[in-house]
Amino acid sequence: MTRPFNFSAGPAALPEAVLQQAAADMMDWHGSGMSVMEMSHRGKEFISIAQQAEADLRTLLAIPDHFKVLFMQGGAIAENAILPMNLSKGGVVDYAITGSWSEKSAKEAKKYAQVNVVADNSGDKHTSLPAYGSWQLSADAAYLHVCNNETIHGVEMHALPDLAALGSKAPLIIDCSSNLASRPFTGEHDWSRIGVAYGGAQKNIGPSGLTLVIVREDLLGHALPITPTAFDYSVVAKNESMYNTPPTYAWYIAGLVFRWALQQTEVVNGQTLTGVAAIEARNIAKADLLYGYIDGSGFYNNPVARDCRSRMNVPFFLNNEALNDAFLAESKAAGLLQLKGHKSVGGMRASIYNAMPLAGVQALVNFMKDFAQRHG
Amino acid sequence: MTRPFNFSAGPAALPEAVLQQAAADMMDWHGSGMSVMEMSHRGKEFISIAQQAEADLRTLLAIPDHFKVLFMQGGAIAENAILPMNLSKGGVVDYAITGSWSEKSAKEAKKYAQVNVVADNSGDKHTSLPAYGSWQLSADAAYLHVCNNETIHGVEMHALPDLAALGSKAPLIIDCSSNLASRPFTGEHDWSRIGVAYGGAQKNIGPSGLTLVIVREDLLGHALPITPTAFDYSVVAKNESMYNTPPTYAWYIAGLVFRWALQQTEVVNGQTLTGVAAIEARNIAKADLLYGYIDGSGFYNNPVARDCRSRMNVPFFLNNEALNDAFLAESKAAGLLQLKGHKSVGGMRASIYNAMPLAGVQALVNFMKDFAQRHG
Repeated sequence: MTRPFNFSAGPAALPEAVLQQAAADMMDWHGSGMSVMEMSHRGKEFISIAQQAEADLRTLLAIPDHFKVLFMQGGAIAENAILPMNLSKGGVVDYAITGSWSEKSAKEAKKYAQVNVVADNSGDKHTSLPAYGSWQLSADAAYLHVCNNETIHGVEMHALPDLAALGSKAPLIIDCSSNLASRPFTGEHDWSRIGVAYGGAQKNIGPSGLTLVIVREDLLGHALPITPTAFDYSVVAKNESMYNTPPTYAWYIAGLVFRWALQQTEVVNGQTLTGVAAIEARNIAKADLLYGYIDGSGFYNNPVARDCRSRMNVPFFLNNEALNDAFLAESKAAGLLQLKGHKSVGGMRASIYNAMPLAGVQALVNFMKDFAQRHG
Repeated sequence: MTRPFNFSAGPAALPEAVLQQAAADMMDWHGSGMSVMEMSHRGKEFISIAQQAEADLRTLLAIPDHFKVLFMQGGAIAENAILPMNLSKGGVVDYAITGSWSEKSAKEAKKYAQVNVVADNSGDKHTSLPAYGSWQLSADAAYLHVCNNETIHGVEMHALPDLAALGSKAPLIIDCSSNLASRPFTGEHDWSRIGVAYGGAQKNIGPSGLTLVIVREDLLGHALPITPTAFDYSVVAKNESMYNTPPTYAWYIAGLVFRWALQQTEVVNGQTLTGVAAIEARNIAKADLLYGYIDGSGFYNNPVARDCRSRMNVPFFLNNEALNDAFLAESKAAGLLQLKGHKSVGGMRASIYNAMPLAGVQALVNFMKDFAQRHG
């Protein structure tokens, strides 16, 4: 069976092997006589699934022991409130605005804290990344929040700000909903620069309805009194994400995805990379192929500055936008699904998360070339 | 294939036909080329799934048009906070305590409102239901909250309090996590007595991670300023539960369960019942069979007053508790799973939700008889 290539921004394509495993396990997981959906979250079967998933994620991303991994609900939009409830202490918080998602985060935080906007690329229609040295950091912020990858505008921070080097003691909070697990946390993306990394699962991790919050232990314990107990990071951590019933099936699928990710290999310059390093190499190759074609096409364009183009979400426009409908209809007929751009930006968007193979991007580029020739 | 009978209190057994459909749809839903997990929540495929699920639920439970159905996240434990955030206006709220769950609800509400406990069965170890006429209702409560079915203690309200008849103008809020869709909303359970009915899905509805909130429209629009936007009922209602990305796969499974429920039939006294009426008849037969055996056994006992025994969750004890481990080991070997009672109560608990067939309860009773003969 050949499946079409699905470029949805999220919920998004999952590895075919994961879906096949889920289908095979559906009626009876490992001889338990139960579907994973039917298991008590406190039974030994599900506990083993949950623990293995966390262990595999920790291995995949080399998460240091002094970070807790929380399996929560509500997505990044709920976290926009839950995060300041847990970390702001009602004081000053810094936000960098680099696209729609960080803008939304900053707006929601105002309910709970005094928001200082350190940088804002609205003047560039969210197509650039203001230099970190120009950011107006507060002296006493409880944290600095950034969106690591703007899913709508296609702006990604390939290096994270090093707050210590910028003279700030605030922990860095990154919303990495759409690039978590797409690249290692090393070098300029190292855990040492991060206080909290969080994101909805529905891009690179699994089904919607699961939110991952990876939080440095020393930041726990400061929730505002109005924080719902189910969303108090300390309570969630203490109860191993089972204070309330977690989204068990989504957690299980995420575990299958982590296992799949660990098994990936890629040969680069004669070296065999594994796990997230292999995934990153493939993601770079996919992004280079697509941006390279767009830039040289004379038929399509991408407006984002080259140093901050997202490897995950590639918004692009036809120079002749009158052809948009034809492009969408013909691409769908060619087995290239969900390419319509976000309504706030228009045009097209190809989301090329971990589960998208290079062959999928190649098929897209081939179609784009063909379309350009026929309509150029 | 014969599957064992799964008595988990939740996440709980699902109808076998639903799981088979989910497995069949996994790689390609209706020729879309996508798993439901991979679909954008804003695409026409998922929108059709979501709308059909809501329409089927409305038909199944005869939900009046002036109620909104919200598909949310966080389970009933999160709702313990979200509900007073949305409805208390920071004033006085009434809570009836009839078991662990309503106790937890009342405690959480204190963060947001002034809680008045109208009744409390703690003195009876949560085995009775205080007469409604004795409840100490506030003159000006924003609402009265009850737990319609206490999953841990096995106490169910078979009639809902008629607040108008009791002289209160407060809307009634029912946490029906563990009995939603197990009985019709008619007679002493009619929608006319209800302001909000809510519950986690993981009992009768679908996978954990989905919360249903069925709210009377006139109660919308009073969220406290600190309410996270993702959990503001008005915002959720206005955005048809898609302000944030909903738990799409759980929503889809719930839809399959609603469709299954609509197709159920049961012949009672020569009359063919359908849908939730058929399900209720089956649930009554299942509960009668199990309680009837326990009461006459002289080997097992259930401590709950007969007028408020739950049809869904049947806690029971062996008169000789030294046999508990043997009972659990032997029942599991006999294909009767997850019968261990909640840790706060001890003993055993058989949760016999909609997906449990009468044959499952018969198998349990047969085993219990056999066990009693061998160990009596």
